[in-house]
Amino acid sequence: MQYFARPISRLIGQLTRLPGIGPKTAQRLAFHILAGSQSAARDLAESILEARDKIKYCSRCCNLTEDDPCPICRDSRRDGELLCVVENPQDIVAMEKTGEFFGFYHVLHGSISPIDGIGPEELKIKELLERLKNSGVKEVIVATDPNVEGEATALYLARILKPLDYMVTRIAHGLPIGGDLEYADEVTLGKSLQGRKEI
Amino acid sequence: MQYFARPISRLIGQLTRLPGIGPKTAQRLAFHILAGSQSAARDLAESILEARDKIKYCSRCCNLTEDDPCPICRDSRRDGELLCVVENPQDIVAMEKTGEFFGFYHVLHGSISPIDGIGPEELKIKELLERLKNSGVKEVIVATDPNVEGEATALYLARILKPLDYMVTRIAHGLPIGGDLEYADEVTLGKSLQGRKEI
Repeated sequence: MQYFARPISRLIGQLTRLPGIGPKTAQRLAFHILAGSQSAARDLAESILEARDKIKYCSRCCNLTEDDPCPICRDSRRDGELLCVVENPQDIVAMEKTGEFFGFYHVLHGSISPIDGIGPEELKIKELLERLKNSGVKEVIVATDPNVEGEATALYLARILKPLDYMVTRIAHGLPIGGDLEYADEVTLGKSLQGRKEI
Repeated sequence: MQYFARPISRLIGQLTRLPGIGPKTAQRLAFHILAGSQSAARDLAESILEARDKIKYCSRCCNLTEDDPCPICRDSRRDGELLCVVENPQDIVAMEKTGEFFGFYHVLHGSISPIDGIGPEELKIKELLERLKNSGVKEVIVATDPNVEGEATALYLARILKPLDYMVTRIAHGLPIGGDLEYADEVTLGKSLQGRKEI
């Protein structure tokens, strides 16, 4: 039996396609939208269309941006010798929030994952090599995620960038600040031991 | 600092207004939408607009519907002597799924909650009294939620409907099927004791 009117079913179906939204959550969201004002629904729909229409890749760093090049690539106060490679646009936000990095970025839009059929060609690595030419970049900091795919991507980048005489570094792995030694997993603790520093 | 391009910020802001969606989830949803195809984004936006435009209240039962009267109110095989009063359109779906109710419904769109400033006038009670006139309804089953507001609403309905010679009943409270006596809260267990039946 069809429990919902067709437009409601359609809306629930569309919402279910979003990540982390199951049928129950989609239903709650749909009824919230229906209970709200017409202008609230229009604002939401328009924001989706506007974002999808106006946002494109920055031609330099492949970050998502409204203007090309993006504000970070246009920022002349940044250090042109440092380039931080990340998997996703969200990672740039995380890096910027640290307030500790003042170089430029390059977004790969994923990581190498043979199991998902994602090889280097699917990532923005060609674009990375292209922009590095005559760029003045000296150090490439690989800030991919600390998991199997991120590590594989980091190793791959090191292998192709080192012969071109770039210094390739990897962000440190270790215990998170505020963490507890007792509850740390052994791989993380092992990494934090390997990466120990004199104080 | 502005970490996201304006259209992305706007989309995240709009998504954060949905229930149960915090800033982090909104960000994940926004980047999912941006990573998807243009047509996927358009489908989502259109389904929101279509649902909000086409869905209205059924003039009889106040359920959300595309056609007026709604399919349930048009169903002539249903028992016209039974009317089930629920808080929300979602509750009708829950009732229908039981396969045990074959009467008609009335949606109050909320429950009496003085703390939130919701009195009987804010609910579809006027509409309920109006439709009951010359309707042939004999029993009004009050299926509001088993919480303070739902109980208050049930009592209020009983008080105004009994003098009009309708039989007013309340759905049973007790232990949920598959539940465990040991872990039941004392109020539920007390209710299930009060509502005991001879077998």
